[in-house]
Amino acid sequence: MTASLDNLITVFSKLPGLGSRSARRVVLHLIRNREKLLTPLIDNLAQVNQTIRTCDVCGNFDVISPCNICSDLRRDDSQICVVEEIADLWAIERSQMFRGRYHVLGGVLSALDGKGPDQLNIDSLIARAASSRIAEVILATNATVEGQTTAHYISDRLLGCNVKISRLAHGIPMGGELDYLDEGTLGAAFKARLAID
Amino acid sequence: MTASLDNLITVFSKLPGLGSRSARRVVLHLIRNREKLLTPLIDNLAQVNQTIRTCDVCGNFDVISPCNICSDLRRDDSQICVVEEIADLWAIERSQMFRGRYHVLGGVLSALDGKGPDQLNIDSLIARAASSRIAEVILATNATVEGQTTAHYISDRLLGCNVKISRLAHGIPMGGELDYLDEGTLGAAFKARLAID
Repeated sequence: MTASLDNLITVFSKLPGLGSRSARRVVLHLIRNREKLLTPLIDNLAQVNQTIRTCDVCGNFDVISPCNICSDLRRDDSQICVVEEIADLWAIERSQMFRGRYHVLGGVLSALDGKGPDQLNIDSLIARAASSRIAEVILATNATVEGQTTAHYISDRLLGCNVKISRLAHGIPMGGELDYLDEGTLGAAFKARLAID
Repeated sequence: MTASLDNLITVFSKLPGLGSRSARRVVLHLIRNREKLLTPLIDNLAQVNQTIRTCDVCGNFDVISPCNICSDLRRDDSQICVVEEIADLWAIERSQMFRGRYHVLGGVLSALDGKGPDQLNIDSLIARAASSRIAEVILATNATVEGQTTAHYISDRLLGCNVKISRLAHGIPMGGELDYLDEGTLGAAFKARLAID
């Protein structure tokens, strides 16, 4: 196989979720669809590479900093929703259930991966929370051991900030069937059961 | 989400094996690794777009036409191995078991997909096989109904060409366990059983 194809397949195979076989498939598909896929992909990648930067306030990706969410005056700037990754921020935005600001940690505390508090954007969160505008910090880390440990650590750090600290509810996901749920989820749902009026 | 990110995710989600969720993951991973992944990807894509073309003889992708395989004098030009797609050609090359030439059909006969003999590179195969140099045509289409139908059709078309026509052996794949194999494969392996000397 010619070197340029080989190099391209190697780069694709390093992307998350792609192995060498799927990278070969993708490359062949791209060459077979030059006008429809390959050229737009090159153009869009170059544009993203040139324009996208990290928001200095919240850590989101955008073409401006502060990003569109941080600078949107219609959003509630008394609430900060803390997430692990930008993908989580996007997921919450798709749900359209939150109209405040965000803070992206850039990961979770993890002894295995050598991630301590200094490797995450925690100091900047504390500084933001200390501002008089902020009334509530919502810890929306994942419901994993690392996510919950990180939330616990952050809530400790926030104690002096005079803000309300909250976390997302645990329970049965919409459409979930009891028989398929783990004991942890069922237990959390029982503990947090609500009276029906 | 900003438009340039949205457009890039849309293009990625059209690639085979990627959906919108995995496309988002890939895009975030690329931006987090600009130097290591995003820039090399743009460079390699642009180079492939500018240099790669289809070989006029066999249908392979290469920077030259006839491709490196078709113009390699060390390869046996009395044998043509017929494959459905370029990915199959690459797979056979990786096995290093064949040192002849190739012919890429560009698909299989399929009434469902509206693919008839005119949509495949069959006429050019017959023309190549009619040359006095060719002694054997190996039909290496997939062991699917469409692949075998296509092989059957091509072997009929090749009857007047005075070449040996062969197909790959069917049987138990290396490492295969009998209990997990389908009846068709087991039946083929029994029919084609070999005496042990």
